[in-house]
Amino acid sequence: MREDYVKRLVDMMETDAMLISPGEELLFFTGFTPMQCERFQALFVKKDGTMFYLANILYEGELQAAYGDAFPIYVWHDNEGLPKVYEILKAQGVENCSLAVNSTAQCFNVFHIADNLNIKLVDGKPLLEEVRIRKSHDELDRMRRSAEIADSVFDRVCEFIRPGLTEGEVSRFMAEIMNSYPDSHSRGGMVISGPNSGYPHYMGNSRVIEEGDCIVLDYGTSYTGMRSDMSRTVFVGSVTDEQREIYDLVDRAQLAAQAAAVEGAWIPDIDKAARTVLDEKGLAYTLVNRVGHGIGYSVHEGPYITQQTFRRLERGMCFSIEPGVYLPGKWGMRIENIVCINENGETEVLNKADRSLRVLDWYKK
Amino acid sequence: MREDYVKRLVDMMETDAMLISPGEELLFFTGFTPMQCERFQALFVKKDGTMFYLANILYEGELQAAYGDAFPIYVWHDNEGLPKVYEILKAQGVENCSLAVNSTAQCFNVFHIADNLNIKLVDGKPLLEEVRIRKSHDELDRMRRSAEIADSVFDRVCEFIRPGLTEGEVSRFMAEIMNSYPDSHSRGGMVISGPNSGYPHYMGNSRVIEEGDCIVLDYGTSYTGMRSDMSRTVFVGSVTDEQREIYDLVDRAQLAAQAAAVEGAWIPDIDKAARTVLDEKGLAYTLVNRVGHGIGYSVHEGPYITQQTFRRLERGMCFSIEPGVYLPGKWGMRIENIVCINENGETEVLNKADRSLRVLDWYKK
Repeated sequence: MREDYVKRLVDMMETDAMLISPGEELLFFTGFTPMQCERFQALFVKKDGTMFYLANILYEGELQAAYGDAFPIYVWHDNEGLPKVYEILKAQGVENCSLAVNSTAQCFNVFHIADNLNIKLVDGKPLLEEVRIRKSHDELDRMRRSAEIADSVFDRVCEFIRPGLTEGEVSRFMAEIMNSYPDSHSRGGMVISGPNSGYPHYMGNSRVIEEGDCIVLDYGTSYTGMRSDMSRTVFVGSVTDEQREIYDLVDRAQLAAQAAAVEGAWIPDIDKAARTVLDEKGLAYTLVNRVGHGIGYSVHEGPYITQQTFRRLERGMCFSIEPGVYLPGKWGMRIENIVCINENGETEVLNKADRSLRVLDWYKK
Repeated sequence: MREDYVKRLVDMMETDAMLISPGEELLFFTGFTPMQCERFQALFVKKDGTMFYLANILYEGELQAAYGDAFPIYVWHDNEGLPKVYEILKAQGVENCSLAVNSTAQCFNVFHIADNLNIKLVDGKPLLEEVRIRKSHDELDRMRRSAEIADSVFDRVCEFIRPGLTEGEVSRFMAEIMNSYPDSHSRGGMVISGPNSGYPHYMGNSRVIEEGDCIVLDYGTSYTGMRSDMSRTVFVGSVTDEQREIYDLVDRAQLAAQAAAVEGAWIPDIDKAARTVLDEKGLAYTLVNRVGHGIGYSVHEGPYITQQTFRRLERGMCFSIEPGVYLPGKWGMRIENIVCINENGETEVLNKADRSLRVLDWYKK
């Protein structure tokens, strides 16, 4: 149990209780998360600082082995169903109150709990992100290592990519490298080739790579639970003059946003710094997503680097800076680094992999 | 688009609209589902039968390619956020109304939509299960094939299991076989060995198999989107007299529930039939979960075979019958088949894999 973070959560909580279903948020507080099926289960943290866990009896053994005496575990049986859940919650004083719920809470369970116990449900995701938005020294060190593992893939994958491979084969190759490090778990990432690269979140992974392709590689790992996430764009066999020109633009947009990301910076200005460079060629409109997202225990968490995030960068914040240019049906490019405001208040770029334009042609030699 | 099912949904709908986020339910109606990140997206089906899709602009290309002209697609941009979502929903008349939401709807998005547009949220999962609870002839045929693929694994995995392998290695071996069939996608399944088998949902997959282990194999595939799910229990090297006795009990409990599962049967009686056999030895209390669950486009869907499912079996229903005995810290056993009430109203057992007690000792020879 991370009691310091539970205390921080309770101090900031404006509801009577917080419900935390299985997933990264539960892992963050307790160091363990079971799988979540359709049977209701969650950790409840009450405003008075007490906690209890409520689960189907199927999970009892696993939960007891993992959590020990950290908090009581109450169980219900398939043949009792949600009515037993209501009964347990009543006995614990969770009724006629407000209840924040985490990001993995299931509507089909919490709606019935709310209706039956006169509970007002509230979105608890932003608060759970806020609690972990400033990384500790230990967390920053693990973020550094996580980025280093991702960086280590880049040169090797450049020597692996050639026409004829599928996107999925490249993704699996990257996963293998990252999974070969201790405490590192990766599912690979996005390998977005040729015209697919015009869509920033394309996830088909099935196209066969061709000579002349532009490829966006967007990937990372989870090292001791801390995530990495980086993107590089490479060219297979050849690159056009237009592509060189746009690559330079994306490169400069990324550096401009990175330079703007200093302690105390107004977050919308970071987003704007990237777009201003892209608009030298009237291309900011093609950047259809935000310039970055916070990262830590989740790949996407606060602070989001958008025009709507009205706050300043603080020490310990970790986030991506990833502008791109996307021309649907043609190609797209992105360069992404993870950046943090470190222990000394400096802007530290965690990813160090080479970002110069690379034409991959080793297979021709 | 499965227009017949959309029509059935609209006819049964008691809310003004239904929201269907990415996942199996969206796949069922439209034949396609994108990935779901934290950015709000969903298909909306209105009571008047009209539909529209609302997504972040990141997904626009993919959605248009998949859905074509089936319904309009409206998009919002990261720099606009949820306020743009509210605006689009208002323009489509989705405000001051009731809205059912599917099983993958995200609380952190739908709560804000409800609060800002005066919408009453309702759990839509049971209705979405009801729409597909009676399988068509075509669906039953695909369920048969899906079960056949799972069955085909059993003899081969029995010749693969030996002391020294991890549970995960066995699971991956099973996945490989199932993924070698066209249109079949499997992640393997649960391989629950030794004392782990005392927990019905144990998912560690990391224990090393030992001589004398009892192993529950619980696995299946998705064949053209239709799921299979079966369990067999095997013994590594040797079996004790007590285990033989309990195996016989579980076997008879499974057959008793299967025999009770006829067209028109009262569902709680099926659950009871299994427990009555287990109670010959006072062991029904160890069956801590329901006797079965419906299956089709999802591994778990209606009808759930519990004491609380107050309805009768109908033609086209598909479900598991999977009683077990679980002795925490010691071992557990389960036998599971998928059963349907077929086109002729007969009880048809889809899984045909051998269920006689197997002691695996090929590796000693």
